[in-house]
Amino acid sequence: MIDERGEGRRGVLKGAVVAAVGAGLLAAGSSGTAGAAEEWKPRAADHDDPASGRVRVAVLLYQGVTALDAIGPYEVLCRVPGARVSMVARRAGRILTDTGQVALIAERSLREVRGVDVLLVPGGGPGMVTASRDAETLDWIRRMHRTTTWTTSVCTGSLILGAAGLLRGLPATTYWASRGQLATFGAVYTPGRFVEAGKIITAAGVSAGIDMALHLTSRLTNDRVAQAAQLAVEYDPDPPYDTGSPEKADAELRALALKLIEDSAAR
Amino acid sequence: MIDERGEGRRGVLKGAVVAAVGAGLLAAGSSGTAGAAEEWKPRAADHDDPASGRVRVAVLLYQGVTALDAIGPYEVLCRVPGARVSMVARRAGRILTDTGQVALIAERSLREVRGVDVLLVPGGGPGMVTASRDAETLDWIRRMHRTTTWTTSVCTGSLILGAAGLLRGLPATTYWASRGQLATFGAVYTPGRFVEAGKIITAAGVSAGIDMALHLTSRLTNDRVAQAAQLAVEYDPDPPYDTGSPEKADAELRALALKLIEDSAAR
Repeated sequence: MIDERGEGRRGVLKGAVVAAVGAGLLAAGSSGTAGAAEEWKPRAADHDDPASGRVRVAVLLYQGVTALDAIGPYEVLCRVPGARVSMVARRAGRILTDTGQVALIAERSLREVRGVDVLLVPGGGPGMVTASRDAETLDWIRRMHRTTTWTTSVCTGSLILGAAGLLRGLPATTYWASRGQLATFGAVYTPGRFVEAGKIITAAGVSAGIDMALHLTSRLTNDRVAQAAQLAVEYDPDPPYDTGSPEKADAELRALALKLIEDSAAR
Repeated sequence: MIDERGEGRRGVLKGAVVAAVGAGLLAAGSSGTAGAAEEWKPRAADHDDPASGRVRVAVLLYQGVTALDAIGPYEVLCRVPGARVSMVARRAGRILTDTGQVALIAERSLREVRGVDVLLVPGGGPGMVTASRDAETLDWIRRMHRTTTWTTSVCTGSLILGAAGLLRGLPATTYWASRGQLATFGAVYTPGRFVEAGKIITAAGVSAGIDMALHLTSRLTNDRVAQAAQLAVEYDPDPPYDTGSPEKADAELRALALKLIEDSAAR
């Protein structure tokens, strides 16, 4: 049995929220005013200081990135003790995702980032191809990679790592419909939700970034912390269907999945 | 076997990307310049027009929202044929998430939204409590709910629905550490990744929003489209541990999970 009150007494956040609610501070129809919208204040002053004790995690955003590729791993990795996740892009500011329906914010530009412990490169639609052809982006990835503890990707983000020349001769994975393209960069497609090769970890498509991030959490800390991170995001998956990989889908369903993606970007 | 080239000939997006890569347009170390950052252009002119044929999905953001609660379901629901997902908030603009490490963008303010087909309310940390006490937010939720096809929540978002008075006498779920609080609003905690009660669907914590969104996709369309949406995000979950629910964790692990959340918000 879960004892929320007990957790609350220990002063933990969710417990505190629970306690506030339990104390009757909330009521249906209660009036009140929300404070002024909190201003966006990057709290990354020590992000570039390896001596800060922080685990510096950078997620590379670009116009046309797939939102869940970035946000899934972020939601896990931000729980790593000492971790500070930073969204970075060629230019800081608004980043329109692949569907054109949602935008994220890149806190810092690439040139502001001098070094990171963990680099994560998400996938995307046609914007991924543009990023893969951008010299500044590829140079930055290679420069970061020299001193990372882990260099990682989700979905077609591995094709960007490949374009940067990081996957030559290595086992790797990517989005299911793009597996055949890994060979273009000298990588060897290898089945799995994620594939670890030295300090490089590539994840399969979109949601696979969550599984990869839990594995990465264990590598950065230990099993216990990774298990707690899994519970923190209540990741006890139970999809209503079992069609999440191309091996579990027929050709017609695979074509329909790709059509749904195409159409979502066209609206 | 997956035939990426075949998909490419059919002109689908991922196939097109694959074809571009396959044609050698990408090469390790290739030079090139990315275009100027695409400006954020909301493409929601017809969002409020029920006659548009669009499935109007609104995700309610607020300062302190949990990013994955919003982005997980978005990534699935944006694949529903005709769906247009819109991030909305009390005030349009930058929304700092619960960890203070990542910001999303709300495209429109609540007063700009006159009606939606699907309302989704994500959870959050202390910011959730603030949202739950905000009269404008609660009034807006009640007003939208009158004409929604589905009113949904993820994680502690159900406590906001509860504060709006929508859950009285209904079975519902929420974040695992907050289950006991549903009774405050007259709701009956019911186990499950998501709980459907009339036109209201509440999901369990954070990542459960993905499972809920697949179910919702089937309700909005059919099994086949929902299965294709699952494949589109390659949702074939395989976490390295099995500690994603409190029933699968001991008391110490539950306390550690809550401490990780508390600490991530304090950095």
